[in-house]
Amino acid sequence: VKTVERVRRLDEGNLPALARGCAILGAGGGGDTKVGLLWAMNAVRDHGPVPVVDLDELDDEDLVMPCGGIGAPTVGIEKIERGDEILRIRPVVEELWGKPVVALFAAEIGGTNGMAPAAWGAVAGLPILDADGMGRAFPEVPQVTMAVAGISPNPAVMTDERGNVVVFRGIDGGWMERMERALAVEFGGQASSSEYQCTVAQAKTGTVRSSVSLAVGIGRVLTEAERDPVGALAQALDAEILIAGKVVDVERRTTAGFVRGQVTIDGLGGDAGRTMRLEIQNENLVALEGDRVHAMVPDIITVIDTESGLAIQTERVRYGQRVSVLAFPCDPIWRTPAGLELAGPRAFGYDLDYVPVETLHGA
Amino acid sequence: VKTVERVRRLDEGNLPALARGCAILGAGGGGDTKVGLLWAMNAVRDHGPVPVVDLDELDDEDLVMPCGGIGAPTVGIEKIERGDEILRIRPVVEELWGKPVVALFAAEIGGTNGMAPAAWGAVAGLPILDADGMGRAFPEVPQVTMAVAGISPNPAVMTDERGNVVVFRGIDGGWMERMERALAVEFGGQASSSEYQCTVAQAKTGTVRSSVSLAVGIGRVLTEAERDPVGALAQALDAEILIAGKVVDVERRTTAGFVRGQVTIDGLGGDAGRTMRLEIQNENLVALEGDRVHAMVPDIITVIDTESGLAIQTERVRYGQRVSVLAFPCDPIWRTPAGLELAGPRAFGYDLDYVPVETLHGA
Repeated sequence: VKTVERVRRLDEGNLPALARGCAILGAGGGGDTKVGLLWAMNAVRDHGPVPVVDLDELDDEDLVMPCGGIGAPTVGIEKIERGDEILRIRPVVEELWGKPVVALFAAEIGGTNGMAPAAWGAVAGLPILDADGMGRAFPEVPQVTMAVAGISPNPAVMTDERGNVVVFRGIDGGWMERMERALAVEFGGQASSSEYQCTVAQAKTGTVRSSVSLAVGIGRVLTEAERDPVGALAQALDAEILIAGKVVDVERRTTAGFVRGQVTIDGLGGDAGRTMRLEIQNENLVALEGDRVHAMVPDIITVIDTESGLAIQTERVRYGQRVSVLAFPCDPIWRTPAGLELAGPRAFGYDLDYVPVETLHGA
Repeated sequence: VKTVERVRRLDEGNLPALARGCAILGAGGGGDTKVGLLWAMNAVRDHGPVPVVDLDELDDEDLVMPCGGIGAPTVGIEKIERGDEILRIRPVVEELWGKPVVALFAAEIGGTNGMAPAAWGAVAGLPILDADGMGRAFPEVPQVTMAVAGISPNPAVMTDERGNVVVFRGIDGGWMERMERALAVEFGGQASSSEYQCTVAQAKTGTVRSSVSLAVGIGRVLTEAERDPVGALAQALDAEILIAGKVVDVERRTTAGFVRGQVTIDGLGGDAGRTMRLEIQNENLVALEGDRVHAMVPDIITVIDTESGLAIQTERVRYGQRVSVLAFPCDPIWRTPAGLELAGPRAFGYDLDYVPVETLHGA
């Protein structure tokens, strides 16, 4: 989507496009957008459209609040938010900061977490930012651009659908992740939370900007592609098509609040004879063909249905699906040393030096 | 200890007696008092003695704060508090309540948790109450007399030795227990916390009073018993000696932040030929001889070293020890319907109607 058309509000007309775009940007993670779309559509029907504002329209001292769900996406399909989580989180954040929240934004634009601010913005009567904290999805709490920019995760506020509310002040992002994950597991595998609240001034350099507009734009490319949605997407995103084929093996387990595993894809048509393996940890992290790495985190690797062009989240991938694997560059902030330390291949336990997808795949 | 001499301060002179008394009142739980004693002695040496005040000496509107450790006692032996936990918990409690804490008290007088307020009182320069929230030890957060009296567990404040701080607002005591336990496990099996803060007026009917003085008194009985400490204790406490014998089997595992298992004791001397089994879940909960129940929770069942009279915590019981099992009545608040619902045998999964130890054992 080389030229992004600025989105000014989210409503029943463009939420489906947002959902499709969030799924593509999710790199397989961030939760199922079907659930998030139903939730956001309901909220907008009940409470009206949600304004989308740019950071430049707000005062530098204003408080903006990231939000989203934490937990394993496999659980999120069945254990959904009650919808009023924002009404418990927001007042606690406002009390702790001593000022009002002027806008919500997605901690991650990827997956259903990209839809959460729309749903919560409608319920709370708050606009949302045309920005997010990842430009994609990542599995862990501190893997956000706010952390790369040096913004504190404290205070974090978490709630469950029952009404329990917990405020965390962690010594660092790693402990925030451990504490919140442990509690999300205790809550049944899924909870809602806000971390890394910040001022508009901080958000200007500490978020990925225009990502809501980008997601809607990606969704529209899919709607408008009359045939070959994969090709249309690849062109719009400057993405590489790593393979087109069929899922022949899925190894997936849900442990400690994460989905982990591998997906194997055998090529079809022009890719016949090739086999690609994706390593997953909530998101698709590394794409390998034998020993050759085609793409790696933090670049975005998304599995899409070859016929419809719709993204398939890691928890939905199954044997026999005809898929294409797309890979495209992450936001430049992730390619900085601080970004790679938080979310590069070594942060996920892979003994790989990061190489950008456009270099790797072209090699 | 039929007449309790009122203790006015805790210092190096009487802390050892307090530790021995807390161990007896702990019913096997509440953590190892050797660790607690070392900690409290150090704190008192560094910061001076700790005044012990009665609730009647304070204003009804004043705020008093229970505190203690949460986690498996087996872990508490090796993973000890850093000592400055109170300096992180207290300011958060005071900010949330909007008034100063005037005194600390033990959530449970049993075990090392009965020593924590002495250590923290010294560090924080605060007096401690001659009262506690159990009159013994219990495994779970909401098993306190404050809960029986209808006092809210919120806000609970927890910290670990690293400096993480968490504030919980739970929908009920059961969820408070689940949330805090999950986090204590994530912290490595042990954490420090405060729940059920209340006013002096509330504490007057919602705590077990004079329990610090009682614990010191019990400790002194042991010091002064020239021979037969078991008999001296039994007389002082109006306790039943259920069996005197030898530990022949210990089945104990540490899971999900709890110590669970069984201890089997074969009688010696006059008790030869008898076998008693204790069911444990951090504390000794039920004493059985075949099918016959001799004592059950919430009454206090304590295993003591027959020669020294010192209590042996559940995590220290081992094969071959010569022990006597003492059982004596709990505080009357636990024998009310609300008390038994929280901490009676059915609360621990035993299909038993509560019968007081003095009735059972005399039967």
